[in-house]
Amino acid sequence: MSTGGRRRRVTIADVARHAGVSTTAVSKVLRNAYGVSAAMRERVKAAIEELGYRPHAAARAMRGRTYTIGVLLPELRNPFFPDILDGLYAQLSGTDYQVIIVTGGPDAKAENRAIDALVDRQVDGILMVAPRVARARLEEVACGLPTVVLGPHEKSALYDAVLDDDEVGAELVVRHLIGLGHRRIAHIGQREGTPRRAAAMLHTIRARTYERVMREHGLDDEIAIATTSYSEEGGYRGARELLGRSPRPTAIFAGADLAAFGALTALHEAGLAVPGEVSLAGYDNTRLAALSTISLTSVDQDGDVMGRTAGRLLLERIEGRTSSVRFSITPTLVPRRSTAPPPQT
Amino acid sequence: MSTGGRRRRVTIADVARHAGVSTTAVSKVLRNAYGVSAAMRERVKAAIEELGYRPHAAARAMRGRTYTIGVLLPELRNPFFPDILDGLYAQLSGTDYQVIIVTGGPDAKAENRAIDALVDRQVDGILMVAPRVARARLEEVACGLPTVVLGPHEKSALYDAVLDDDEVGAELVVRHLIGLGHRRIAHIGQREGTPRRAAAMLHTIRARTYERVMREHGLDDEIAIATTSYSEEGGYRGARELLGRSPRPTAIFAGADLAAFGALTALHEAGLAVPGEVSLAGYDNTRLAALSTISLTSVDQDGDVMGRTAGRLLLERIEGRTSSVRFSITPTLVPRRSTAPPPQT
Repeated sequence: MSTGGRRRRVTIADVARHAGVSTTAVSKVLRNAYGVSAAMRERVKAAIEELGYRPHAAARAMRGRTYTIGVLLPELRNPFFPDILDGLYAQLSGTDYQVIIVTGGPDAKAENRAIDALVDRQVDGILMVAPRVARARLEEVACGLPTVVLGPHEKSALYDAVLDDDEVGAELVVRHLIGLGHRRIAHIGQREGTPRRAAAMLHTIRARTYERVMREHGLDDEIAIATTSYSEEGGYRGARELLGRSPRPTAIFAGADLAAFGALTALHEAGLAVPGEVSLAGYDNTRLAALSTISLTSVDQDGDVMGRTAGRLLLERIEGRTSSVRFSITPTLVPRRSTAPPPQT
Repeated sequence: MSTGGRRRRVTIADVARHAGVSTTAVSKVLRNAYGVSAAMRERVKAAIEELGYRPHAAARAMRGRTYTIGVLLPELRNPFFPDILDGLYAQLSGTDYQVIIVTGGPDAKAENRAIDALVDRQVDGILMVAPRVARARLEEVACGLPTVVLGPHEKSALYDAVLDDDEVGAELVVRHLIGLGHRRIAHIGQREGTPRRAAAMLHTIRARTYERVMREHGLDDEIAIATTSYSEEGGYRGARELLGRSPRPTAIFAGADLAAFGALTALHEAGLAVPGEVSLAGYDNTRLAALSTISLTSVDQDGDVMGRTAGRLLLERIEGRTSSVRFSITPTLVPRRSTAPPPQT
C-alpha cells in the first residue's frame, strides 16, 4: 500500500535562506511584529510563496489565535508525565485553550519532526518536556512562538524554563542511603542523547550529583553507574548489569521511578529481597511508587505544580510577556519501605 | 491575567444550519467530493465565509494532505493506551505521518471540544479510543474524515472499528475464578457516561458478561458490582465499597488493570493478603501487571496489534477505501499469582 510520495516540509529556515534574511526576520514578518520594513516584508512573503511554505503561522497572525497549546513529551509510558499534564489542564481549565500532544520518539531527528508537526498545527504556545533536540532548535521555535521548556537547566532569553532542582533531589537520595548505612550504592542513569547539552540535562545532573556525594563520603571506589534509559526496560537492563558485579551493590538509586520498576523485576528474578538484600530508590514520586506492593522510596518534584506553572507562563507569553522566566522546584524525599539498612555481613 | 475573550468555535453543524443544508453536504463541499452542484457549493462557501468557519479542512482539500493522524485518548494514565500508540507508531514508521494526541477529559462535552481541536488541526485521519460522545458525533466526524473507532462495539458504515471481544475476555476471568473455587466474586466497573450507547461500551459488556456467567453458575445471589471508574482512584473506591459487604467477596474482578492497582491499595489498607484472603484480577495485561511485586492475573487484548491495525485501516481509508471494516481481537487469559483458591473456612 502506498502512503503517498515523500514531501520534505518547508521550514522557516528554508524561507530565511531563500529570502536571504535571518529566521528572526522571517519570524517577525510572520508575527506582524513591529520594526519590519515593507521591503523586508515583501521579500519574505515572496519567499514563502515561491517555496510553498505552509502559511499557517502567517494565517494565525492574521486571523488571531487558534487557542491551542502544543505539548512535546518524550514518550507516553512514564507515569510522571500525566502529573505534569494534569497540572497544565487544571491551569487551562476555564480558558478556551485545548492541548495537543506529540511524542518525541526514539531520537532527536524524530523529535524534530514532532516539533515541526506542532508548529505546523499553528499552536499558540508550546511546552517541550525534556527535549533532546539542539539548543539552537529550541531557540528557533521560541523565536516564533511562546515557548516553555520543562526539565533541562539551560538559561535562555527566548523561552521560559520550568525545572526541578535535580541536584538537590539526587543528593537527598544518596544521603538517605548512606544514612541507612549503605556504601555499595549503584546508580541507573540515562544514556546521553545530546552531548552538547549534557551539562543541562536532568539525567546527567542526577548522575553527576550521585558521583559527587559518593566522593564527598569517601566512597569513590564504590561508584557504579549503569547507563541505560529512564524506562522499565532500561531499569531492568541496568539492574542486571549492576547485580553482575562482585560484590554486588546493597542499594540501587534509579534516576526515575519507571526505571526502578524495571529494576524491581530484575531483583525479583535474581531472587533478591527488597529491601532485605537490596534497597531501591527512584525519582519522580509517581502514583505507582506509592502502591502498597511497591512502596518505592522516591523524590517528589511536584509535577502538578510544574504543569500549572508551565501553563501560566505560556498564557503570560501569549498575552505579550517577552522577558524570560525561570521557575525551579525544590524537591523532597519520600522515604518508603523499599529502602532500609543493608544486610549484616 | 486575561486569556482573551470567549469565542465559540464555529462548527460544521453551524455552517450546515446557516446554509440550510445537511452536514454531509457541507462535508462533501469541503472534501471537493463528486456530486455536489455548483449552487450547493456556492451556498456552503458563502456560509463558511459569513460565519468565519476556519477553512482548514477546505484548505486541506485544496492543498493536499497534512500527513497528520489525530488520536483521541480518554486520558493519559491508563498504561494500556501506550501499548496501542506503540502499535500505531510502528505501523506509521517509514511513512511521513505524524501523530497528534488529545485527551477527552472528564465528560462528553470536553471530549467534543477535544475532537474539534483535532478536526481544526486538519488531520488526515482520526483514531478515537473509547470515545464517549454521541454516535451521531462519531458519524459526523467520519463523514468528513477517515475515522477508526477503537473500543466500542457499534457497527457503522462510515467508520472502521477495532475492538476486543470483551465478552470472551470477561468470561475467561469469571470462569477462571469460579474454577479456582470462588463463589463470592465481585466486580469493579465503570459508570455509564453514554446511556444511549451503553450496550456498545466495553465496560458495560464486561459487567454484563460478569453477571451472565455468575448466573449461569447459579451464583445470582453473589453478584456484587461497584460502579466507579477504570482508574486507580475508581478501583480504590470500588474495592472499599465491596470489602464493606458482609460476608466480603473472596475475589474481585476489576474491569481494567489500572482499577485493579487501586483495589490493591484498598486491600492492603484493609490488611487483606492477595491472594491468600482475596484474589484479584484485572483486564488489559499492561506491563505493570507483569511486575513481580504485583503479578496480576489479567486479560490480554494485544494493544500493539490493535494499534497497528488502526494505523493500517486509517492509511487505507486515506488512500481511498470507503467501505467499512470491523476488526475484532479475541483476548486470552494471563493467570498470575494474584489469583488462587479461596481461603478454607
